[in-house]
Amino acid sequence: MSNTSENLKIVSLDVKDMRFPTSLHADGSDAMHTDPDYSCAYVIIRLQNGLEGYGLTFTLGRGTEIVVEAIRTLSSIVVGKVVTDIYKEFGAFWRSLTSESQLRWIGPEKGVTHLATAAIINALWDLWGRLVKKPVWQLLADMEPEQLVSCIDFRYLSNVITKEEALELLKKGREGREERMNVLLQKGYPCYTTQAGWLGYSNDKIRELANKFLNAGFTAFKLKVGKNLQDDIQRLEFVRNIIGWDRTLMVDANQVWEVQEAIDWMKHLAKFKPLWIEEPTSPDDVLGHAEIARALKPLGISIASGEMCCNRVLFKQFLQADAIQYCQIDSARIGGVNEILSVYLMAKKLGVKVCPHAGGVGLCEMVQHLQMWDFVALSGTSEGKWVEYVDQQHEQFVYPTVIENAHYLAPRAPGYNTELTKEALENYVYPQGKEWESMFAKGIFTDPRK
Amino acid sequence: MSNTSENLKIVSLDVKDMRFPTSLHADGSDAMHTDPDYSCAYVIIRLQNGLEGYGLTFTLGRGTEIVVEAIRTLSSIVVGKVVTDIYKEFGAFWRSLTSESQLRWIGPEKGVTHLATAAIINALWDLWGRLVKKPVWQLLADMEPEQLVSCIDFRYLSNVITKEEALELLKKGREGREERMNVLLQKGYPCYTTQAGWLGYSNDKIRELANKFLNAGFTAFKLKVGKNLQDDIQRLEFVRNIIGWDRTLMVDANQVWEVQEAIDWMKHLAKFKPLWIEEPTSPDDVLGHAEIARALKPLGISIASGEMCCNRVLFKQFLQADAIQYCQIDSARIGGVNEILSVYLMAKKLGVKVCPHAGGVGLCEMVQHLQMWDFVALSGTSEGKWVEYVDQQHEQFVYPTVIENAHYLAPRAPGYNTELTKEALENYVYPQGKEWESMFAKGIFTDPRK
Repeated sequence: MSNTSENLKIVSLDVKDMRFPTSLHADGSDAMHTDPDYSCAYVIIRLQNGLEGYGLTFTLGRGTEIVVEAIRTLSSIVVGKVVTDIYKEFGAFWRSLTSESQLRWIGPEKGVTHLATAAIINALWDLWGRLVKKPVWQLLADMEPEQLVSCIDFRYLSNVITKEEALELLKKGREGREERMNVLLQKGYPCYTTQAGWLGYSNDKIRELANKFLNAGFTAFKLKVGKNLQDDIQRLEFVRNIIGWDRTLMVDANQVWEVQEAIDWMKHLAKFKPLWIEEPTSPDDVLGHAEIARALKPLGISIASGEMCCNRVLFKQFLQADAIQYCQIDSARIGGVNEILSVYLMAKKLGVKVCPHAGGVGLCEMVQHLQMWDFVALSGTSEGKWVEYVDQQHEQFVYPTVIENAHYLAPRAPGYNTELTKEALENYVYPQGKEWESMFAKGIFTDPRK
Repeated sequence: MSNTSENLKIVSLDVKDMRFPTSLHADGSDAMHTDPDYSCAYVIIRLQNGLEGYGLTFTLGRGTEIVVEAIRTLSSIVVGKVVTDIYKEFGAFWRSLTSESQLRWIGPEKGVTHLATAAIINALWDLWGRLVKKPVWQLLADMEPEQLVSCIDFRYLSNVITKEEALELLKKGREGREERMNVLLQKGYPCYTTQAGWLGYSNDKIRELANKFLNAGFTAFKLKVGKNLQDDIQRLEFVRNIIGWDRTLMVDANQVWEVQEAIDWMKHLAKFKPLWIEEPTSPDDVLGHAEIARALKPLGISIASGEMCCNRVLFKQFLQADAIQYCQIDSARIGGVNEILSVYLMAKKLGVKVCPHAGGVGLCEMVQHLQMWDFVALSGTSEGKWVEYVDQQHEQFVYPTVIENAHYLAPRAPGYNTELTKEALENYVYPQGKEWESMFAKGIFTDPRK
């Protein structure tokens, strides 16, 4: 079927509440999120010609139904549009979703409505990749700078970056693009693992996993900290003994500390030479992070944050204030690819390294594309940078991430790697999926319909 | 019926989607919110003994259903509790709502879930007032400092204020309390009006309203600006000619500008001597507001913001950075009374004036209590401060605000003045209320169920 306007009209937007019972094994547990059931609100956008795009936003179980409701509300802005008209002025369309005159009051651009925006926008990027038969990283890397900036809403950014400055950065970023694309296709992009370090794990499990990832070629490891100082000291010592001192160690407190508490606690952990402390305090506290950064700089410890940073305006301030030295964009929290592009551009301008957050459901699948685009067409380097990697729920995807020698291999399938398998949809749609029905019958979980 | 534990158990939490068709008359229109239908998610908490508490969060129409869904999800944390147990450790209960281990991911403490929290928390305060037969301002003003601080979650605030410092401020604030309570009961608390200045109004309507409020004793007037500079200049001149130069004029841009744009625009309006420019840019941009504040200080123009400030951590930074000189707390955006108390305490410590946002649906009814408590028991003064006043939807409430000589009179009814009338509930519950059915039948609005 040819791609006439009529064929490219969006005829439906469906959304599903997908939940995976990860709380049964303490996977993903940290000092703040003690029992997550990794979940997502999953969007299916369908064109008249039958082509579909898939997008999602990551959640932790309860509350997914609220994001689903928000996606239903936003869908009226999407359905009926010709999808290529959206791509022609994608930045303007993005603003129509995020600044709808009545809906913006319940955000704006944060929390539930912004997660919903991310799921829809991610589905549109998956669809775009499928239409032009390119993985999203390549779609982005092949774009003319003018087209790329037309995807971005620069509102509220101009005191740090303008459209014109972004264009300049992108034009410069293209130099050497072919060569880097070859490197990427051969070697992939480096990653670190968080897998050995969840708080709920025993020492034996940590040793087993650390050795597994060492053998797989990993050189950078992240541990959860912040529940108990003596435990943290023991665990860091334990892990340093396994991985040695030449490898990179990061620690992550998942927002549990006050500002001064973070500084004091990290002074005790400094001897284990962590590269960064991640989320030392509230994800909204730019000035607090800046204070912690100033105090820990003499100890050689950097600050990382971003997975719960709510939008580009907060990121702008974290970057402006030198409050973070590692910028951890998340592919499903801020409003999808379009807004994330603006964060990469600001980070590039201000010289801050981007090390994306991943894990969860589909976050690895998506964010690899963005970091690969950055490597090929913007920052031009992967030195001292990694994408997070967690071996979690990849089997639910038709095109899961592929890791070789601690590198994400460049995706080849068209789109954004966001399509869930038929089995995942049958088993884990909540609450009526087969696996959920079976767990309700066994009394492992309580059926919310009863 | 006596107040035994059994009688004080919360047996139900109902929530209703209430919408009022204000877009028909451009009431409440500004540069960013062009067609609001003033609405609220309305919570009814019922005890075993039959007593009910009413709470709400304000919305602009579309999206109210999302907040309603979030309230339904949060209700499981509330129903079944003995309400006096909640009041005994109210700060801890507040944290259990805002930091639920799975739900917090889709906030945290911002957007839809925080608005939902506000509605529930506000209902609990209304209920508390009814239980002890006091209006909330008096309930607060009569509390021992220790009890008041036990209502507050100080997480993430300790680099600006600790529990101990808050206690000190409250103890000092009690001096002269009786005298100020008498002043309050006699004169009420001063307010300004936004009523004459909505962007959608004609000059004739503005003149008529300005004169009406002048005759009613108002001395402070706020105008909307930011759509067109020449229009703003004309409107400010027009209004100054009516109200004269001895009265106070504030202007409000509702977030439409970039940082430098705000500075440049306000230089053109400086000659009309506005006391403050409100929401010059993104409500998330602490550093941007600080930049604007520094630039406008030599012109004698202050910065006001807060109605869309998402939580106490953002407020903390706005206050720390001298980014706002007028702190506009909102009674229904951050997580209800408990969190707002912490903002008043920080503002008091840092010497920033609190001038609450009001208008909307029920915002005047609620926020008057907080400012009156502050006057009686914390800051001890109303000098150079006002509560916003908009004559809008008060008729929907059983105990509406009473304004006399440009002052809010101190509420006498027990509770938080948040109970909607039976008629309001019958006519404006959405979409099945009588007035909505009638407007759908006439084709004035489209029935969302069709």
